[in-house]
Parts: sequence; structure tokens; C-alpha cells
Amino acid sequence: MDPLLEKATRQHTKEHNSRLLLRTIYEYGAISRADLARLTQLTRATVSDAVGELLERGLLEEVGHGTVGIGRTPILLSVVADARQVAAISVTNERVVGALVNLRGELRASVTLDVPLCDGDAILETIYAVADQLRRAAEYPLLGIGINTPGLIDVERGTVVRAVDFGWVDLPLRTLVQERCQLPVYLANDSHSLALAEYMFGQAQGTPDLIVVKVGNGIGAGIVLGDRLYTGEGNGAGEIGHLVVAEDGPLCKCGNRGCLETVASSAAILRQARELRLTQASALSAEPTLEELAHLAQAGDPLARAVIAEAGRYLGIALASLVSVLNIRRVLITGQVAPLGELLRKAVVTNLARRCLPALARATVVEVVALGPDAPLLGAAAPLLTFELGIERLSRP
Amino acid sequence: MDPLLEKATRQHTKEHNSRLLLRTIYEYGAISRADLARLTQLTRATVSDAVGELLERGLLEEVGHGTVGIGRTPILLSVVADARQVAAISVTNERVVGALVNLRGELRASVTLDVPLCDGDAILETIYAVADQLRRAAEYPLLGIGINTPGLIDVERGTVVRAVDFGWVDLPLRTLVQERCQLPVYLANDSHSLALAEYMFGQAQGTPDLIVVKVGNGIGAGIVLGDRLYTGEGNGAGEIGHLVVAEDGPLCKCGNRGCLETVASSAAILRQARELRLTQASALSAEPTLEELAHLAQAGDPLARAVIAEAGRYLGIALASLVSVLNIRRVLITGQVAPLGELLRKAVVTNLARRCLPALARATVVEVVALGPDAPLLGAAAPLLTFELGIERLSRP
Ligand SMILES: [Zn+2]
Ligand SMILES: [Zn+2]
Repeated sequence: MDPLLEKATRQHTKEHNSRLLLRTIYEYGAISRADLARLTQLTRATVSDAVGELLERGLLEEVGHGTVGIGRTPILLSVVADARQVAAISVTNERVVGALVNLRGELRASVTLDVPLCDGDAILETIYAVADQLRRAAEYPLLGIGINTPGLIDVERGTVVRAVDFGWVDLPLRTLVQERCQLPVYLANDSHSLALAEYMFGQAQGTPDLIVVKVGNGIGAGIVLGDRLYTGEGNGAGEIGHLVVAEDGPLCKCGNRGCLETVASSAAILRQARELRLTQASALSAEPTLEELAHLAQAGDPLARAVIAEAGRYLGIALASLVSVLNIRRVLITGQVAPLGELLRKAVVTNLARRCLPALARATVVEVVALGPDAPLLGAAAPLLTFELGIERLSRP
Repeated sequence: MDPLLEKATRQHTKEHNSRLLLRTIYEYGAISRADLARLTQLTRATVSDAVGELLERGLLEEVGHGTVGIGRTPILLSVVADARQVAAISVTNERVVGALVNLRGELRASVTLDVPLCDGDAILETIYAVADQLRRAAEYPLLGIGINTPGLIDVERGTVVRAVDFGWVDLPLRTLVQERCQLPVYLANDSHSLALAEYMFGQAQGTPDLIVVKVGNGIGAGIVLGDRLYTGEGNGAGEIGHLVVAEDGPLCKCGNRGCLETVASSAAILRQARELRLTQASALSAEPTLEELAHLAQAGDPLARAVIAEAGRYLGIALASLVSVLNIRRVLITGQVAPLGELLRKAVVTNLARRCLPALARATVVEVVALGPDAPLLGAAAPLLTFELGIERLSRP
């Protein structure tokens, strides 16, 4: 065999083993070298060498002793949560939020800058500013920068193919930030990020098949399939925001009519409430919020209830598509509509049952949940843990 | 280590290696032991032992010599196509078709029995009769029986959860046939089977991500994701036949209104043609076929063209769901509507673009293709090759 190839193969195997060990220690929290060898089926010597290197790099620490057996008590290994951090950045229409996220998904420093509405150039400058502030704030080595942004992302090329609201077309965002900051940069679509955050750190932790539908100003679904984020052939998987659900509905920015976003986004829901308010009796204020809408609906206000039911109807139509295509049984709806809670969930579920095979609908559990404000940042950080260190969750058998 | 566990582990490793070698030989057609060792990274001794056993079981043959190198010329190994056969059975509303299928997807004997329309008990008896005839006709060892049937299948439990047309509810079809025939039995949903057949033996051979939409009396999609048939958590993935695409459309057997099957199945298309014929000028006969419809449409008959455009519109709506959720770029539409060809394709593509994010639609290639009449049988046979022998295709890098 070619000696260079052989050397490369050995190097590759070594890296592979090191990542496997780190991931296993991460998953188990604290574990002995002997158990590691047993679980990974690597030799004791290989485990010992690799662990030695991980200790040297500061990624692991020895955390005292396990249960006392006969003779020696084994030393347990654990991942040092702050051994590395990620500069996580989340971009929305209104602001750019950043934070340092450690290996356990804990936030260490954060910064928020507002941006001028819908000005792509200004948003880019704001991303630079947030990245610079985070780099200055970092007290531990940075794995890199994770950026979570709306729009169609080409993860491989690191470009934003199209973000309608920002006027970005084929923006090489990864290269731009990478050259400026001299750190690895990963981009992720905002709904994909949320699904990943939920799967890695959230309430659906370790659910191997999962749909997370984000409903804010935009709407999109993140899909976890068999313990992996499923992104599709062009990173467009779950792009349900532009699925047409209303025949001859409102004109959408994408050029079509009646896209889900035109009738069920947070902006669309509030617009609908304002319009109906002109013709129907309601306690709703002139510039209602989703919280106000939820509050009035719970108190029985018919207009508020009708608006929520209508949004739920359209979301139910889109869910019928997701469920008929994927037959994934756990669906979380989240984002700005979370306060609409149980009323929204009921409307969605009722309409889901009417729009797809009833047996599929019955087998599906839909929840409306508020994710923590950190979820977009955790989602931005997660790919760096996975790709730079090999840390990912695997559902246990 | 527990000696029993050790023995089991060694046995498992041996089987795993044997399957890996068989699959690799199958994929490459003819290959030397040395190349096998290189490709599989197994030792020469392991390859030699395992190949020896596969030769003994009659699954392999030595097929003469490869290209002449320096010194010895290597002997090539090849899978014996008829070393094993599968009794493949395809069930439709009208008939039960069976054939012996060999390891290369070639049909060796076939039998067709008609069934009384929509009588579940009679269909079951007919399946038994076809299975018996195939077992008698088999000249080579049978791997087992593969059955391809419409409806929602629980592959793990081997039951038909629900087949509306046959009145089957929770029918333990696998156990029934297994006990009678004393052979392994695998069930598959008909659209899933077609996708698998296309991927294993058809024109989309080795396309790692693929959607095959079957449009006959029923409508369903089979999804290949990353070189694997994707079936969903309850084997309901791709169940788009009951996705509602027509608001307040015709009542469907499932209890909902306007399901895709009620407006775009072959029966629905012909019903629509018959109804329009009463009010519009057309050369269409009183009991038209899809072939006649296609022929007239190509000749410019406006009624025939309108009927095809309408079916294409509804299929385009369903495709928008598949594409928005999965972002898979290659879609084959097949089944009884195949003769509608280019006219149907154009209508589908036009409507797909209007119903989902235009960039996603543009990235998707839609074809309307006639699969061979054997496709349902090949799809029924494929799981046995995979699960009983480890034979599956892997897209090459
Ligand atoms: Zn749109
Ligand atoms: Zn139906």
C-alpha cells in the first residue's frame, strides 16, 4: 500500500475514534475508561491514548470516582462544558442577537443589536459587529461562528441563496464572515436550527423523528429524521412557508398567491385581527399583539377566537402535507404564535384530521410550545459542536 | 468476557462480513478476491473464507479471468442470478399477479388470477392460490414470499392496518401466508414497492434521493432517501392519496372530502371525462380509456386536454407538498396515468411552480414514465433480497 495513503488512513481512523469517544463521554455525562472501551468496542490502549490527548486539549476532565467495585475505584471522565465556546448569532428582521454558547448549550455572554427594517447591507454590518463583540467577550477558545438566518441557505457553499425579506440573493455569507473573523463559520436556516436545538438540548431531546414548525414572520419546518437533521437536496426541506394553502389568497413576496405565510404568519394573523375588528364587535385594541389576542380569546372574545381558528385551519392544511409525506408522529409548533397555545392546537388538530388520512392524523401528536429565547442561538451553535468536535446526540436503543 | 456472548458476537461479525461481500460482488458484477479485500477493508483470509462459504451455498460462481496483470490472472467472482428466487405477489382490486423473481430482478414464471371486485376474503384465498402455484413452479430454492398490496401496511407486525377497497382492517397477512407456506413473508405497500423497484432495478437505479408517485385507482408516493426506502414511523410515509387538494370536493371512502384520489386517480379522471362529455363537444367515446384520452388530447381535442390539465393541476398541488417537505429533486409519476405523458407532465409542473417556493420547483425534475408491468413484482421481491441476503444498491461516490 502507498505509504502516504496508509498514513492518511491511520490519521483518519485516529480522528474518528477520538470523536466517537468524545461523543460517548458527552452523552453519558461521566464514564470510566473501561466502560468507554466496552461501549465503543475500541481496545483499552486506543481508548487510553485518545483520552490522554483529549485531556491534554482540555476537552475532558477527570471527575472523581465511580461506584466502588472490588479493588480499584475507576476514575470517571467528563466533558468540560466551557472547554470550547461557539459564537452563536441569530438574525431576524428586527435584530441580530449573539451569544457565547458552551458545549452543554449554556449561554455565557450575549449581545443584541437592532437593525433597520429590511435593509440587507445594514444587517450584514450588524452581523459583523455582533461577531466582533462576541470574539472580544470570549474567555475560552472559540470553535467558530454559527449563524442562523431566515431564507433558503446553501449549507455546503455557505451562501444565502435567497432571503426575500432582506433582499439577499446568493450572498456568500460564510466566506464574508470567515475572512473577516478567521474562524470556521456555519450557516443554518432558522427553522432547521430550531429543530436541531430542540433535538440536542430541548424538551424533545433525543426524539429520533421530529418536526418543529416555526411560525413567526416567516414559517418553516425543521425535520429530524433518524437522529439527523434532514435538510433535503438543496437545503430546502421543510420550506412550507410558501406552500399555497389559500386559493386566490393574498399575493406573496415569492410571486405566488395564498402561501401559508400570507395567512398564518404572526404578521398575517395580526393583520387579519385588525381587519375584522373594523366590522365585528370585539375588545381588541387597534394595534393588537398575539399575547392580547390569546388573552381575549381565552376570555371568550368571538373575534379573537375566530382569528386563531382561521390561522389554525391554514396551519392544519400545511401539517397535513408534512404528516402525509413524512408520517412523523411528533410535531411541535413554536415561534411567535406560541402564546395562542391550546386554542391554536385544537384548530390545527381538527383541520389536520380533515385534510389527510384520518389514521395518520390520529397517530400524530401536535403540541404548541414556547421554546426558550435561546433556542435560535442553540440551533446556530449545534452544527459547530457536531462538525468541529463530533458531538451529536444519538437516541439510545 | 462471557464465552456465549463472545461466540454470538463472532457469529454476528461473520454474517455481517458475508453480507457485505455478497452485496459488493452483486454491485460490481464480477470482481476478484483481491479487489474485494481492498474495497471492503477486510483481510484476505476473511474474504477467502467467506467467499468459500458463499460458493458452497451456490450463491457465487467463478466466472473466468479478469484483465491480465503481471504473473497470475485473478479469478473473478459473480452472483449466480438464479441461485435463489422470490415468490413475488402483487395485489390489486382486479387481480392477483405472481411471479418467480431471481436475484437480478428477472422473471422466471408468472401466474395471474382475477379476483371478484372488492371482496377481501376472496382476495385472500386468491393470494394463497397464487403462492401455492409459484411454490410448485419454483426450480430453485425460494428465499421467501414478497407481497405488495394497497393500503396502510404495518411492515414490522406484518399486518394490513387498513385497505379501504378490500375491507381489510388489521389483517395479519404475513402470519397467515407464513403459516400456510412455511416461508419467510414480507409485506410492502404498493407505492413504496414501486419506488424500491425503480431504485433497485429501474431507470432511476442508484439515484440516492427519489420520489415515485403511483397514480392508479389509488395514489401514493414511495420515497427513497439517502439510498434507503423511507417508510415513516407507521409505514405511512407518502400517503398523499388522502391529502385534501379540492375544497369541498367529492366525498372519499376515508370520510373526508376532496382527497387527491377523488379527483386525480385513474377512475376519477375517466369519470370526469364521462361527465364533461355530456355537455361538451368531443370525439371521446362513452366509456373512454386513459389511452383514448391521451390519443385525443394529442390530436387537439379540447375536452380531453381539459380533463388532463385538471388532473395535472391536482397532482401539482400534491407534488408541491412533497417538494416543499422533502426538497428531493427527482420525481417520477407513474402507474395507469403514464399514457397521459407530456401533457400531464406540463400541467403538473406548471401547477407545482404556482404552489410552492419557485426556487424549489425550478430545482425539481418531474417525469411521467411508464414502468414495466413487472415493477410491482420487482418491488415485492426487493425486500427479500435485502433482508434475507443483504443485497441492496448503494449509490457509488
Ligand atoms: Zn410565497
Ligand atoms: Zn380520502
